[in-house]
Amino acid sequence: MITKLPKGLTIRNSKPSDHQRIISVMKDWWGGRDLVWMLPKLYLVHFCNTSFIIEKGDNLTAFLIGFLSQSKKNEGYIHLVGVHPNYRGLGIGEFLYHRFFQICKENNRDTIRSCTSPVNKRSIAFHGKIGFNILKGNAVVDDVQVSLDYNYPGDSKVLFEIKI
Amino acid sequence: MITKLPKGLTIRNSKPSDHQRIISVMKDWWGGRDLVWMLPKLYLVHFCNTSFIIEKGDNLTAFLIGFLSQSKKNEGYIHLVGVHPNYRGLGIGEFLYHRFFQICKENNRDTIRSCTSPVNKRSIAFHGKIGFNILKGNAVVDDVQVSLDYNYPGDSKVLFEIKI
Repeated sequence: MITKLPKGLTIRNSKPSDHQRIISVMKDWWGGRDLVWMLPKLYLVHFCNTSFIIEKGDNLTAFLIGFLSQSKKNEGYIHLVGVHPNYRGLGIGEFLYHRFFQICKENNRDTIRSCTSPVNKRSIAFHGKIGFNILKGNAVVDDVQVSLDYNYPGDSKVLFEIKI
Repeated sequence: MITKLPKGLTIRNSKPSDHQRIISVMKDWWGGRDLVWMLPKLYLVHFCNTSFIIEKGDNLTAFLIGFLSQSKKNEGYIHLVGVHPNYRGLGIGEFLYHRFFQICKENNRDTIRSCTSPVNKRSIAFHGKIGFNILKGNAVVDDVQVSLDYNYPGDSKVLFEIKI
């Protein structure tokens, strides 16, 4: 795990004006999948203190959108994370996760959850590498526990949890 | 404004298992518009203490999904509200809003925000009746201030705010 960012990259909390920058790169960063509907502007307005932007100068390099669960006082939730394709494999995603874990610990959270689509093998491997467990679902797809119809009919998700 | 619910209706906080019930009625309650993507399950998992379900026996009558802004310590945000078509005009929506205002006040919030699509004239009238102001946007549609491209390109929203 890297303990500091590669030279020239800086990290800061997100702000509402980052919304436009993030949604403009999402389709490209997700290999053509259009997931912009997953990130209405409210995430950038109301969860700034647990969401992070990594930049190189004026260029967006990576982001993490997460929040402290309001109902589950011991949980933090990571909603969406993206790293510019040219900056993958450098540990930046893991750096962002550990930055989020740190702010969760400061807020007395010991459990972090996240989820991804079964099709996103890169994300499943990434969560496994960091130490997330996959929660039991209601089906197995490619040897992975999957929760079918999670957000709406036909939407399958792999659910992750880690104790920090 | 009604101070108690019509006979036979009960209110409680939402719980995760309400998600399936809510998304199964949304298209019908929204006149055929499919807005299920607006309500991933996370809202029912993480914001239970500021979200409400109204039922008649086992039947869903209305719901309000809202949360306390994590970054803006004086704000509450109402994300989605629905009332069964057969129960409209009885003050149930306003009752839900005031229940949300009450929990916001208990948490030292003095500003509530919400938004809707310009096409939803019923929602715009409803917010006006309750006392919400419409925030200045970047366009005017049918004499209403509208924020164009709010959540993504082509998505227009009317933004509401009320001081409580």
